[in-house]
Amino acid sequence: MAEQVAWIGTGNMGFPIAENLLKNGWDLSVTNRSIERAEPLVHFGAKIAPSVGEAVSGRGIAATLLSDDEAVRTVAEGPGGVIENLPPGGIHISFSTLSPGFVEQLARRHAEKGQILVAAPVFGLPDRAKAATLTIVTAGPARVLDRLEPLFRAIGSEVFRVGDEPWKANWVKILGNFTLGGILETLAETLALSRRVDLSPALMVEILDTALYRSPVIRNYGTLMAEEAFEPAGFRMRLGLKDINLVATAAAKLDIPLPLADLVRNGFMSGLHRGYENLDWSALSKVRAEDAGVESHD
Amino acid sequence: MAEQVAWIGTGNMGFPIAENLLKNGWDLSVTNRSIERAEPLVHFGAKIAPSVGEAVSGRGIAATLLSDDEAVRTVAEGPGGVIENLPPGGIHISFSTLSPGFVEQLARRHAEKGQILVAAPVFGLPDRAKAATLTIVTAGPARVLDRLEPLFRAIGSEVFRVGDEPWKANWVKILGNFTLGGILETLAETLALSRRVDLSPALMVEILDTALYRSPVIRNYGTLMAEEAFEPAGFRMRLGLKDINLVATAAAKLDIPLPLADLVRNGFMSGLHRGYENLDWSALSKVRAEDAGVESHD
Amino acid sequence: MAEQVAWIGTGNMGFPIAENLLKNGWDLSVTNRSIERAEPLVHFGAKIAPSVGEAVSGRGIAATLLSDDEAVRTVAEGPGGVIENLPPGGIHISFSTLSPGFVEQLARRHAEKGQILVAAPVFGLPDRAKAATLTIVTAGPARVLDRLEPLFRAIGSEVFRVGDEPWKANWVKILGNFTLGGILETLAETLALSRRVDLSPALMVEILDTALYRSPVIRNYGTLMAEEAFEPAGFRMRLGLKDINLVATAAAKLDIPLPLADLVRNGFMSGLHRGYENLDWSALSKVRAEDAGVESHD
Amino acid sequence: MAEQVAWIGTGNMGFPIAENLLKNGWDLSVTNRSIERAEPLVHFGAKIAPSVGEAVSGRGIAATLLSDDEAVRTVAEGPGGVIENLPPGGIHISFSTLSPGFVEQLARRHAEKGQILVAAPVFGLPDRAKAATLTIVTAGPARVLDRLEPLFRAIGSEVFRVGDEPWKANWVKILGNFTLGGILETLAETLALSRRVDLSPALMVEILDTALYRSPVIRNYGTLMAEEAFEPAGFRMRLGLKDINLVATAAAKLDIPLPLADLVRNGFMSGLHRGYENLDWSALSKVRAEDAGVESHD
Repeated sequence: MAEQVAWIGTGNMGFPIAENLLKNGWDLSVTNRSIERAEPLVHFGAKIAPSVGEAVSGRGIAATLLSDDEAVRTVAEGPGGVIENLPPGGIHISFSTLSPGFVEQLARRHAEKGQILVAAPVFGLPDRAKAATLTIVTAGPARVLDRLEPLFRAIGSEVFRVGDEPWKANWVKILGNFTLGGILETLAETLALSRRVDLSPALMVEILDTALYRSPVIRNYGTLMAEEAFEPAGFRMRLGLKDINLVATAAAKLDIPLPLADLVRNGFMSGLHRGYENLDWSALSKVRAEDAGVESHD
Repeated sequence: MAEQVAWIGTGNMGFPIAENLLKNGWDLSVTNRSIERAEPLVHFGAKIAPSVGEAVSGRGIAATLLSDDEAVRTVAEGPGGVIENLPPGGIHISFSTLSPGFVEQLARRHAEKGQILVAAPVFGLPDRAKAATLTIVTAGPARVLDRLEPLFRAIGSEVFRVGDEPWKANWVKILGNFTLGGILETLAETLALSRRVDLSPALMVEILDTALYRSPVIRNYGTLMAEEAFEPAGFRMRLGLKDINLVATAAAKLDIPLPLADLVRNGFMSGLHRGYENLDWSALSKVRAEDAGVESHD
Repeated sequence: MAEQVAWIGTGNMGFPIAENLLKNGWDLSVTNRSIERAEPLVHFGAKIAPSVGEAVSGRGIAATLLSDDEAVRTVAEGPGGVIENLPPGGIHISFSTLSPGFVEQLARRHAEKGQILVAAPVFGLPDRAKAATLTIVTAGPARVLDRLEPLFRAIGSEVFRVGDEPWKANWVKILGNFTLGGILETLAETLALSRRVDLSPALMVEILDTALYRSPVIRNYGTLMAEEAFEPAGFRMRLGLKDINLVATAAAKLDIPLPLADLVRNGFMSGLHRGYENLDWSALSKVRAEDAGVESHD
Repeated sequence: MAEQVAWIGTGNMGFPIAENLLKNGWDLSVTNRSIERAEPLVHFGAKIAPSVGEAVSGRGIAATLLSDDEAVRTVAEGPGGVIENLPPGGIHISFSTLSPGFVEQLARRHAEKGQILVAAPVFGLPDRAKAATLTIVTAGPARVLDRLEPLFRAIGSEVFRVGDEPWKANWVKILGNFTLGGILETLAETLALSRRVDLSPALMVEILDTALYRSPVIRNYGTLMAEEAFEPAGFRMRLGLKDINLVATAAAKLDIPLPLADLVRNGFMSGLHRGYENLDWSALSKVRAEDAGVESHD
């Protein structure tokens, strides 16, 4: 039987995931900083709670999907927070993209109260959240992951387990995002040069995908760049920079050089100063094309 | 009816391609610097010629698949070369990976003799050459490409045309190789960090491919890195460096910055000095792992 | 007349500076985490205090020279700290190399108690501290800087003022350290290549200094590299990395790309993993020479 | 007694050097591609020759100071060139900034005719050429350098010898230029960040020079950047890029990574595409300031 869960965070990703859980029979109390963004979930059976405390109170599982470390810290710690309101033995499922160091601290705080933190960051943009075809990377005690398996299966098509320590799932997530940054850089430089020598970027992308990659993600980003289709943004450059900063900062703490991450984030930073903050992060190709003296559509 | 072609170059790639042409009924005279490497083609009907001049003489099409600009220059120019021996109206199909600047010069030399240069560099390692599933990127006059279409179809599964100017096909090829370098760098840094935080590199590759890329090429290189299966080399690091140098040099001539190419080639150079010259170029992951202080199998 | 000052921190830099103040007639109460390192100052008239609280209590000025943000935070905040023990109107002179963001916070904490933070980071290694020839970069309210001028003049040969906001002095300091990193990188790559083409590194340094720079600092670092005189370290690579990380992190918070800082810190990180942590930071030249395949003395 | 010398090349550097030689009693025949730029030297006793052949004919020493490899190749090789017209035992003094690889070839060509190539590239801008205070880096057979010593002393204040092989002097020269690029990058990033945090760039330069470098070159370039005094250019960005390309290309041939050279040349390339081609190369600071989102005067 489906469990009683408090769901905190109904943004672009949180909303459709919660909707899928509700449709699959989960009993959710839902809250969100802007409560009006949670309210439509009433139609699918959600109980709307005015605060984190009220959402969590009386439930054994709390799930958070928020924008960053600070947002999760605010919701988890302090009076009225998740930690205060979960019972001993309670479970906090953290779906957010967070820094591994913060997740390690958070796990300790939960452990001090006899609670369990499970990290379950997801790969996929809102369309995959809606379609319940996310890839979910989970980490935590095996018996807890066993118990949560039906929940993960209700929202994603693949569920991976990467160990007992929750922060490892967050490493996978931020490394995955880093690889996307690397792909974007690769395509951006390639297409800048293609344009410069008067090779059609669209044809170039088609050849690369046919000859080498056969990857929907690579074809998709290549096409966005070839068509300069940066609005509306699937994922804004400002957020892309945030994600690359996460991995760069976490790597630096371990004295690990990531020169490609440096390169990508310098590109995004420069893009921000050119006013591309709210363009899709594939607009990195605009930055590289401009640095190459290739005319862009602006 | 299939045409009479002189085939020059029977290395890892040239041999299986010539074999496929012979099996499909082409009449080939074949030569190679080390002539003994050409001789087994006799079994498939090839005429072995002791020199470039004798191979080309009396034929309207010459095809070259050699290691670099210098090798093609030697075979094409000077006494006894392709240019001297092709008739007016003759066609030189250049399958090699060459610098666009050299191809531009070569095209001019042919044009001065009323000959036509077609560039047709291929994507694919020897296994795809054997299977006749190469991707061939062609450039040259449309009517000549029409005439050669059956030849290309006999050796590849996809044939692209990228314009009249032959060097454009070479741009596509070296840019394609550059993208592979970018992918290798991305994976190498990712897996160095994975190892450092005790995340299984094999699992990391599986998750990336499942969650994001679904690309055989990416999965394959990731697996080589995860397993440190760098010998026997599919493509040696020394050759990888040669290819990245090609694109870096060509871009520099156009004042185009390619910071990712710089990064990758610096990694390869450093790898050479560590003795990885003859490892697969995916051993870039060893370089990055060592720079990250992560133990390798050596 | 010289003022009563609490001096906290008697490391390589703090000890000789405190000694110079005592010799110039300042009345110092001195404390240090390892109190035995403070005790020799008794010979110059210092009062040794067993704790920060006792050192500061009853005095209007506290000076700190500690290793990093955390050390200063520990000494400044919390029970028994500088903030608690300074009177309203009291002055905290921070000589340490700190992150501008932390200094901004610290200034606010002091302001809440009616106290004043002055930042006065210093340029110069212990030999210049002993000789009282440091360069001191100060920032704070002008009237307070006026009052402290005699103190600064007792320990340094140049005193700069860079504004009212104390953290600006810390920007100058970390940017200055960054420039040293840039010089080290420049020299390291230059000398790696010199060695490779069999040009004497010592001669190369002499020519560069004569023809171009005429700078004792550049000649000195070049000579350390040419002679591979990395021990004993004037400034350890681990500390060099810490300083470059300070500026890289502070710049990233402002979305400012510093690609050279990235390059230098990646070099230092790689050096750490090669075991050069306790060599002088000029051993960056070993890292670059090894990446260039040039034999080093190891 | 001063010798009979053919002087080829009367540009910004060649003219004042030739003038100094004439004033010191050398007997010069002078030629230049644009002969009218040589003619004013008649006032100092020069014989103007209409061609390289006529300038060199009958003289035992030819000196060239030209813009690049191609210009020297044109003048040295081929009919009417230096090699053809110098007698056996004749000396070619090459003052130009050239690639070491080309100088090696050129030395061989001279040796085949029993002639001697001496490389003597100079450090210093036209003002130092006029003042005869250049630094001259010489390489060639010791007895020939002995014979030429008075000539070098007439035009420079320091003369270094770096070995028998002429190309080594060219390595010193291009490495020296590379170090300037590294200094420019260091200052450019530093001042971009200074501006961003509202620290006066001029004050920053003054502090750096006082606290650390005490180097006229560093102070000079820092001041150009602080004042954005990029016109008239002392050394144009286009030429700066040419010089960094020289060292980057020569290093790549030896498989030596020079990541700082990559960074600097990418900056210059991007600067060219922003229209800064004819600004002083210190306008690299504009590129970095723009990438940092800091307003420039444009």
